[in-house]
Amino acid sequence: MEPSTSIPHDEGAQRARPPLRLGVLLSGRGSNFLAIARNIREGRLPNTELAVVISNVADATGLVAAKDLGLPTALYVSRGRPRADHDADLIACLRDHNVDLVCLAGYMRLLSPSFIAAFPNRILNIHPSLLPAFPGLDAQQQAFDYGVKVAGCTGHFVDGHLDHGATVLQRAIPVLESDDAHSLSERILVEEHIAYAEAIARVASGEFEIQGRRYVRRAKA
Amino acid sequence: MEPSTSIPHDEGAQRARPPLRLGVLLSGRGSNFLAIARNIREGRLPNTELAVVISNVADATGLVAAKDLGLPTALYVSRGRPRADHDADLIACLRDHNVDLVCLAGYMRLLSPSFIAAFPNRILNIHPSLLPAFPGLDAQQQAFDYGVKVAGCTGHFVDGHLDHGATVLQRAIPVLESDDAHSLSERILVEEHIAYAEAIARVASGEFEIQGRRYVRRAKA
Repeated sequence: MEPSTSIPHDEGAQRARPPLRLGVLLSGRGSNFLAIARNIREGRLPNTELAVVISNVADATGLVAAKDLGLPTALYVSRGRPRADHDADLIACLRDHNVDLVCLAGYMRLLSPSFIAAFPNRILNIHPSLLPAFPGLDAQQQAFDYGVKVAGCTGHFVDGHLDHGATVLQRAIPVLESDDAHSLSERILVEEHIAYAEAIARVASGEFEIQGRRYVRRAKA
Repeated sequence: MEPSTSIPHDEGAQRARPPLRLGVLLSGRGSNFLAIARNIREGRLPNTELAVVISNVADATGLVAAKDLGLPTALYVSRGRPRADHDADLIACLRDHNVDLVCLAGYMRLLSPSFIAAFPNRILNIHPSLLPAFPGLDAQQQAFDYGVKVAGCTGHFVDGHLDHGATVLQRAIPVLESDDAHSLSERILVEEHIAYAEAIARVASGEFEIQGRRYVRRAKA
């Protein structure tokens, strides 16, 4: 059994502690980012704050939304740049903003090994399928075309492989007879928004271990 | 859109109709066969009967159980025989017993193309995972080791590929913090038993189409 993996932030939870600082990476509309922001605003993610929202795409509407919310933002256009150089900029930016936990919110780019290593078990993603089924793009369409009767989403740590890190939680929904790929996507997205807040809360608690590739919840010692 | 696929048996459902005759293939304890038998006995699969239970393994306890229930049984030992020869015996036996629908219940052998062709969309299987995740052997252990948080089972038509035919239904359960692979398997098995009866009833109704590889329920015209 490996030692408990917790983010340093969480030590001494019984004492007053500084807020958990999230760094968001996005490439598009960032609907999962907006759900996180809403959950924070409405008190469902206590003691958590958005430290910085970073886009790799200049016209990402999620970046505009972050500015509108008065959040710190950064743009590092990735197109045409070597991955390691780009990721070095991201790491520096996240560290400058004292980010504890990195949240991918529709970030359409694989992270480099150096990025993964810089935030061990501190990078979360939500994928719109019950992984390991349907990794990659258009997961909902893949699932619909396969004809699954149960669909869902997966909150997971990010490792160096596509949609592959340890599973923090999954939420399942039935595929309805009336569904098409679009309606299924919309209903999965509702679950994603719930799942992301819960995944952040679970990771923030520090009350877990990673055994092999299994995320196991543990009561605090 | 392909034409509706229904088993001939089902035509004229408003008139008195002969019972749907099931042929079961098993290799071991046949717990899913016993669940089907129980569902028939207890009236949850009306107008359905077990026509024959066939094993490919001499000492399969499911075969003994079938005899104890007074059901017609047959043994065709597959070990060492060419698949096509063995399957030809199975096809003949199932036809001799006027089988409408073939139910695999822990039948540990791939079916030949000629067998599949002999019973188009009339072969059902239950697999202990949410396919396409974790096909093959020890699906529950695979799922546990992967660390999924949602597990389940899949009732599907059988085609020429392993655990691959169109999905009739799936049932999902949460993986509990207290689970090990054994307890997870036991809880999935409960779902398999429910799912098998429901899958049989759905297929028996004839009220479906296969679109691509999607099973779509349809009200009868």
